[in-house]
Amino acid sequence: MRTQVAIIGAGPSGLLLGQLLHKAGIDAVIIERQSPEYVLSRIRAGVLEQVTVDVLDEVGVGQRMHREGLVHGGFDLLFKGERHRIDMNRLTGGKNVMVYGQTEVTHDLMDARSAAGLTTVYEASNVAVHDFDADHPRVTYEKDGQQHELTCDFIAGCDGFHGVCRASVPRGAIREFEKVYPFGWLGILSDTPPVHHELIYVNSPRGFALCSQRSHTRSRYYLQVPLTDKVEDWSDEALWQELRLRLDPAAREHLVTGPSIEKSVAPLRSFVTEPLRFGRMFLAGDAGHIVPPTGAKGLNLAATDVKYLSQAFIEFYADRSDAGIDSYSERCLKRIWRAERFSWWFTSLMHRFPGEGEIAQKFQEAELDYLIHSEAGARTIAENYVGLPLDFGR
Amino acid sequence: MRTQVAIIGAGPSGLLLGQLLHKAGIDAVIIERQSPEYVLSRIRAGVLEQVTVDVLDEVGVGQRMHREGLVHGGFDLLFKGERHRIDMNRLTGGKNVMVYGQTEVTHDLMDARSAAGLTTVYEASNVAVHDFDADHPRVTYEKDGQQHELTCDFIAGCDGFHGVCRASVPRGAIREFEKVYPFGWLGILSDTPPVHHELIYVNSPRGFALCSQRSHTRSRYYLQVPLTDKVEDWSDEALWQELRLRLDPAAREHLVTGPSIEKSVAPLRSFVTEPLRFGRMFLAGDAGHIVPPTGAKGLNLAATDVKYLSQAFIEFYADRSDAGIDSYSERCLKRIWRAERFSWWFTSLMHRFPGEGEIAQKFQEAELDYLIHSEAGARTIAENYVGLPLDFGR
Repeated sequence: MRTQVAIIGAGPSGLLLGQLLHKAGIDAVIIERQSPEYVLSRIRAGVLEQVTVDVLDEVGVGQRMHREGLVHGGFDLLFKGERHRIDMNRLTGGKNVMVYGQTEVTHDLMDARSAAGLTTVYEASNVAVHDFDADHPRVTYEKDGQQHELTCDFIAGCDGFHGVCRASVPRGAIREFEKVYPFGWLGILSDTPPVHHELIYVNSPRGFALCSQRSHTRSRYYLQVPLTDKVEDWSDEALWQELRLRLDPAAREHLVTGPSIEKSVAPLRSFVTEPLRFGRMFLAGDAGHIVPPTGAKGLNLAATDVKYLSQAFIEFYADRSDAGIDSYSERCLKRIWRAERFSWWFTSLMHRFPGEGEIAQKFQEAELDYLIHSEAGARTIAENYVGLPLDFGR
Repeated sequence: MRTQVAIIGAGPSGLLLGQLLHKAGIDAVIIERQSPEYVLSRIRAGVLEQVTVDVLDEVGVGQRMHREGLVHGGFDLLFKGERHRIDMNRLTGGKNVMVYGQTEVTHDLMDARSAAGLTTVYEASNVAVHDFDADHPRVTYEKDGQQHELTCDFIAGCDGFHGVCRASVPRGAIREFEKVYPFGWLGILSDTPPVHHELIYVNSPRGFALCSQRSHTRSRYYLQVPLTDKVEDWSDEALWQELRLRLDPAAREHLVTGPSIEKSVAPLRSFVTEPLRFGRMFLAGDAGHIVPPTGAKGLNLAATDVKYLSQAFIEFYADRSDAGIDSYSERCLKRIWRAERFSWWFTSLMHRFPGEGEIAQKFQEAELDYLIHSEAGARTIAENYVGLPLDFGR
């Protein structure tokens, strides 16, 4: 088989890149290790920046998002037992975010890909990338017991943190920056109305909590837990009880609990690979960088990556220019480090860090107090949360 | 001997409180363990906020400061080898800071106290505070081999971090919050023209540096050094050489070096005591809180403390009201925690922290990059640097 761009990974990055290339008349094949059902079962973030909404609209998959997604113009910060609203919309001159689950985005992209009759190979095993440092890269994989080879012009590594693409880069050619946080997030999804119409980010002496949502009838809550905690350690009742203890009285009163649809413990990590281009292979999304989920930047960064990558391929095929390809890594990394910085900062501001002593919470509370009382301070969190403009700092 | 307010410590806090009380017609005696010469030999910060300038003017000791001090409307941040100016004056709607050494402030306050014929007991040994939890507190000390007792209505503990006042509070009555930083500042004072007309704060891979000044002909430079370094380890030449390596090419070229007048290594600490009032004894300045010197908040916080404390005493004597006394601790701590937060944040942003890995510097550079490119970000550092308004967050 032969294609112009071989995309490894059919998560939101790979699927969105596929749609962007299709729209530009560039041929792409997606190779995915898992089944579509497995991909859809991964529960991830649910807050989209305007730039992400724009890209989804651009490729024509935004209809259901606009119908079912919730537009949020602010969120609450809860600390020292009191809630304070960050009015993002006012502070950023009219910008909002869209609450719409990553699962739904993936679903919409899958549907669009099917409808267009584009090739996705699911359940491909032993996927390997070859010769990306030369002119004719190849991808090999097995499917239904048969060996396959896909020749291509470029490989797009959209295969996540544990994927084969980054792992195939020679060690000396890559730098990796990493910070692992000393706690995890216990998440619960339940078909209960959200405790509040917007999100609540909680700094409490018992640890961080987040009251999030997927719709008016589906809630998503998170609790900071020790890294050693396993999901089996937490009954639904124990989780709801601990959440109550971290909320303010009004939220505690409004909290509606119910059985979990999904429950999981996830570690938190900051991770960046430099560069993101290796000859004719490019990393995008989680394959190249991970943010801790505080601030919901993961999917949004992936969307910008593949938007830039599609522009680079379009310039290559339509204008016979290498400019976009050559600048891809630097262009992405500029935006990535800004979001990494914000995600690290917001994570550091909201969580208890073992061994840091009582003064650490005092600093956090003083910073939160400053942020809500200073117009400039409030604006810094708002403008980062809705997403810095694509031309920021140019 | 009998007085209304016994002030322990003749540093800038104690002297300034003395002048404020004198102006209000309240009698005060200052007891100091050291000689005047020793007090004046302590080289400390040199950047005054407008609120500090205002208090010095209020007590009539501002003439020389306005004549010799340097008004700065901005400072430079140097990172990734390039300098960027923070235009404080524009970002705060016209506010500045005054560069004028703490030694000079102390000198001016000493002169004013002498001129007014007010009592300061220098070289008092074995100073002890008594009965501050009852109605008639006392201070005892030895001077020239004789035992003395000073009876008073109130004790003002302006005796610094190592002073006797805080140490005399029963353990259970006090909470202490502390963070010790894993590095020190090596400082040099020299009669050379400053490398730049404003201050330069340097984040370099080799560690933090600060190019400061006391006048057009006297420079003050600091280098981050390991805590284990002693001042004897650093010849003047080695210090200048290391400073050069942390500067940008233009600054390196303009740097004029010369023999040190003073050279020292100081540890960095964040420290806050809660509360600041214990019956009829009050802590002010370094006796109650320490900030790391990044951001130059130490003297400025002390000035606000004693301003609030003088108001409390004036209300007590003139209006027979306990309101100021009762609210002193809370009122001060609000402002103190804000400055502690800023000083901790600015310190964390600019220094290398052993063991934090390469990603820590990447986060710092991304944050600095954000600050200089975002109007809101730049404003947060500017408004904290010039000093948040006294009524901030009310």
